[in-house]
Amino acid sequence: MLFLVRMDVCLPSDLSDQEAETLKHQEKLYAQKLQCEGTWLHLWRVAGHYANVSVFSVEDLDTLHTALTGLPFFPFLEIEITPLCAHPSRVAPE
Amino acid sequence: MLFLVRMDVCLPSDLSDQEAETLKHQEKLYAQKLQCEGTWLHLWRVAGHYANVSVFSVEDLDTLHTALTGLPFFPFLEIEITPLCAHPSRVAPE
Amino acid sequence: MLFLVRMDVCLPSDLSDQEAETLKHQEKLYAQKLQCEGTWLHLWRVAGHYANVSVFSVEDLDTLHTALTGLPFFPFLEIEITPLCAHPSRVAPE
Amino acid sequence: MLFLVRMDVCLPSDLSDQEAETLKHQEKLYAQKLQCEGTWLHLWRVAGHYANVSVFSVEDLDTLHTALTGLPFFPFLEIEITPLCAHPSRVAPE
Amino acid sequence: MLFLVRMDVCLPSDLSDQEAETLKHQEKLYAQKLQCEGTWLHLWRVAGHYANVSVFSVEDLDTLHTALTGLPFFPFLEIEITPLCAHPSRVAPE
Amino acid sequence: MLFLVRMDVCLPSDLSDQEAETLKHQEKLYAQKLQCEGTWLHLWRVAGHYANVSVFSVEDLDTLHTALTGLPFFPFLEIEITPLCAHPSRVAPE
Amino acid sequence: MLFLVRMDVCLPSDLSDQEAETLKHQEKLYAQKLQCEGTWLHLWRVAGHYANVSVFSVEDLDTLHTALTGLPFFPFLEIEITPLCAHPSRVAPE
Amino acid sequence: MLFLVRMDVCLPSDLSDQEAETLKHQEKLYAQKLQCEGTWLHLWRVAGHYANVSVFSVEDLDTLHTALTGLPFFPFLEIEITPLCAHPSRVAPE
Amino acid sequence: MLFLVRMDVCLPSDLSDQEAETLKHQEKLYAQKLQCEGTWLHLWRVAGHYANVSVFSVEDLDTLHTALTGLPFFPFLEIEITPLCAHPSRVAPE
Amino acid sequence: MLFLVRMDVCLPSDLSDQEAETLKHQEKLYAQKLQCEGTWLHLWRVAGHYANVSVFSVEDLDTLHTALTGLPFFPFLEIEITPLCAHPSRVAPE
Repeated sequence: MLFLVRMDVCLPSDLSDQEAETLKHQEKLYAQKLQCEGTWLHLWRVAGHYANVSVFSVEDLDTLHTALTGLPFFPFLEIEITPLCAHPSRVAPE
Repeated sequence: MLFLVRMDVCLPSDLSDQEAETLKHQEKLYAQKLQCEGTWLHLWRVAGHYANVSVFSVEDLDTLHTALTGLPFFPFLEIEITPLCAHPSRVAPE
Repeated sequence: MLFLVRMDVCLPSDLSDQEAETLKHQEKLYAQKLQCEGTWLHLWRVAGHYANVSVFSVEDLDTLHTALTGLPFFPFLEIEITPLCAHPSRVAPE
Repeated sequence: MLFLVRMDVCLPSDLSDQEAETLKHQEKLYAQKLQCEGTWLHLWRVAGHYANVSVFSVEDLDTLHTALTGLPFFPFLEIEITPLCAHPSRVAPE
Repeated sequence: MLFLVRMDVCLPSDLSDQEAETLKHQEKLYAQKLQCEGTWLHLWRVAGHYANVSVFSVEDLDTLHTALTGLPFFPFLEIEITPLCAHPSRVAPE
Repeated sequence: MLFLVRMDVCLPSDLSDQEAETLKHQEKLYAQKLQCEGTWLHLWRVAGHYANVSVFSVEDLDTLHTALTGLPFFPFLEIEITPLCAHPSRVAPE
Repeated sequence: MLFLVRMDVCLPSDLSDQEAETLKHQEKLYAQKLQCEGTWLHLWRVAGHYANVSVFSVEDLDTLHTALTGLPFFPFLEIEITPLCAHPSRVAPE
Repeated sequence: MLFLVRMDVCLPSDLSDQEAETLKHQEKLYAQKLQCEGTWLHLWRVAGHYANVSVFSVEDLDTLHTALTGLPFFPFLEIEITPLCAHPSRVAPE
Repeated sequence: MLFLVRMDVCLPSDLSDQEAETLKHQEKLYAQKLQCEGTWLHLWRVAGHYANVSVFSVEDLDTLHTALTGLPFFPFLEIEITPLCAHPSRVAPE
Repeated sequence: MLFLVRMDVCLPSDLSDQEAETLKHQEKLYAQKLQCEGTWLHLWRVAGHYANVSVFSVEDLDTLHTALTGLPFFPFLEIEITPLCAHPSRVAPE
């Protein structure tokens, strides 16, 4: 099952540079791990914003929830989720 | 260049069934032509809505504009465009 | 998988009483069929509104999409979908 | 009487981990107590969010108010309340 | 139980004057009947708007729903409902 | 003249418990004084929220402004004001 | 008492030119009558919009309501009302 | 040229009383200076809010910008600007 | 003086093709006339929308209002106006 | 390719004057550098706001993203991006 997920990042201003760097590093490792597992199917940066648009491929909603709430950035994210289906006009197989 | 495009369809209620079918058929052909040309990269249906989420791959904004305003559904679409960039944490090459 | 679905009904004003009654009857039959199949798990009326709040239980998003777009009222519905997971504080088993 | 209640949690960033853990523990006990009493009828987690969707069953509005404002999380909650009625198309008895 | 209810009226423009007058007359009779029964506790006009703010006193939500959906104006109303409780600083008894 | 006033309270998180208690006590005394004077005609708690819905009866807008800005809670209130008139369908005299 | 009133005009598209002209003429006469009576204190056009911003001076809210609902344009107006008071920093007497 | 300007004041909570008093005094002097110069044509308090509605009369937009950004309160203001024109139905000369 | 103006076009669905073409032709002539006069300084199409973003250069607000309300499309436009000033960091002279 | 970009600045209140001045100086140098390179095509101040409206001319979205996220003010900016195309009614060549 596919979900479009937009994540807007808003790190607290009182986070030290060191803490921010550590967090970003953890976030990157986590994101790349999920991509390698096939859960995080697409990942794009939203131009001009500290945000991304992604497509998650998961078995069920608990997996989606675990994947998103496991993000090191999770407490600092505004998340919007759009469930996706196969489109009848789609040419390429899913 | 990639653009995330959400299209919500709102066909006028005074459109006859015949007109609606013709329009839908034209829309499908148009969408599949653009997919084959590589312009319309991804196309998903938004679950529970008469709407789609797509990713367009275009050389420039005029091409994007021409592609979208050429849609038979264009007069009946609410369109939201999000410019996308490569994300630094992306594993797979673009 | 569970989805909270809010449906606000807005029937067009130029629908004759007869057409409206027929549509309502079809909607009721359809809703009761899905309830008997276990897809439409909960169904409540929103007090003071021509709207309902429901919980759908489906295998996947295509099933959810098919169930919702199959509603006779679908063209006249404003639909809001919230994916649900099991809550860690929940006492009763799902 | 039934009320759909959505609660979005926003814990202040200056809360220590210890304070947060204590608060979460109290919140869980409180939620499970109300579930056992039959007041908190349904409790689901909103996928991808620190939020829940619940259905409360109460005698009157004062009971609802007391139940919600008694939540340890109450000062950190954004609450949305939707009064529910029996739906005429519902198959299963309430 | 008390509910604050705001009703904004938007009569369709293709309603004949005669139909509008009949509807308004029925609405007035209905509103006065509910006031006499004690259901419609307070009724004020919102200055400068075709809208009212009211307080309904009902036993339960089904009664509230029946009262509101029974309004001749119901199909042409935008309704907002706010459940009310006794306030701890209130001097006069409820 | 009557005004419907909704007040949503948002006390700053860095207010000590003692300061909060003092403020609440002052607010209660102030509210009860205005009720006894007949200015604060109705006062209800909004179920599930730290908010109230009230009806103020004042001679003029300066009186209304003085009454509201005199609230100890005023700096921490989100206030919404709706001017009210007598409604033509009202049965009981104002 | 003073009220700031913004009025956005949206005449229905099926109004004939003749009907529109008659209505505009009546609206102008009405507006000028209220200005001569001192009720309509200030009247400005909002640049680039079919809208005005006005200040009404009235004894009470019923007068304000009567003045606004008496506008020939009233059924086609979106009205926003802001109650005004004397400002402590104002130099010129009210 | 005339501009309607709404200013909503939101002073930071960590401002000492002394700082706040000084700022308010400066703001008052500044406002009265601009009124005497004829730039600040009208100034009203919004009833029940820490906000004002004003009309500025300026030669050009740079003057307007300088006047507004010169306000001691400027960093703590939410400002909404509406350009105004002479209204064809206005009786009194501008 | 410069104003940023966004115009979103929404032609009524009951406009015949002939009427729409005539209107578009008039709109184009009008827009080009104002560009030649130097009033319509910049004109861009918003990609993917039936809308434009423009910069108008005018002596005063009446000129701006006349220019915009003179548009053949004016009754079918949603207009948003942002007054602009010279920016202190601008390199090129205005 | 052209993009309309609105930037609303919201510097944190705990930034010292010295830090703010340094940041503003860096922002100005950066903005002027991009203007000299032809990337930052137009730059206007929004009257009455700590905001600007700009037009960026870039080869692709990565360049746009790099330009915007490189702004010293970037962490304190609310950014809105509107992709622009050539308008068919434009007289002057692009």
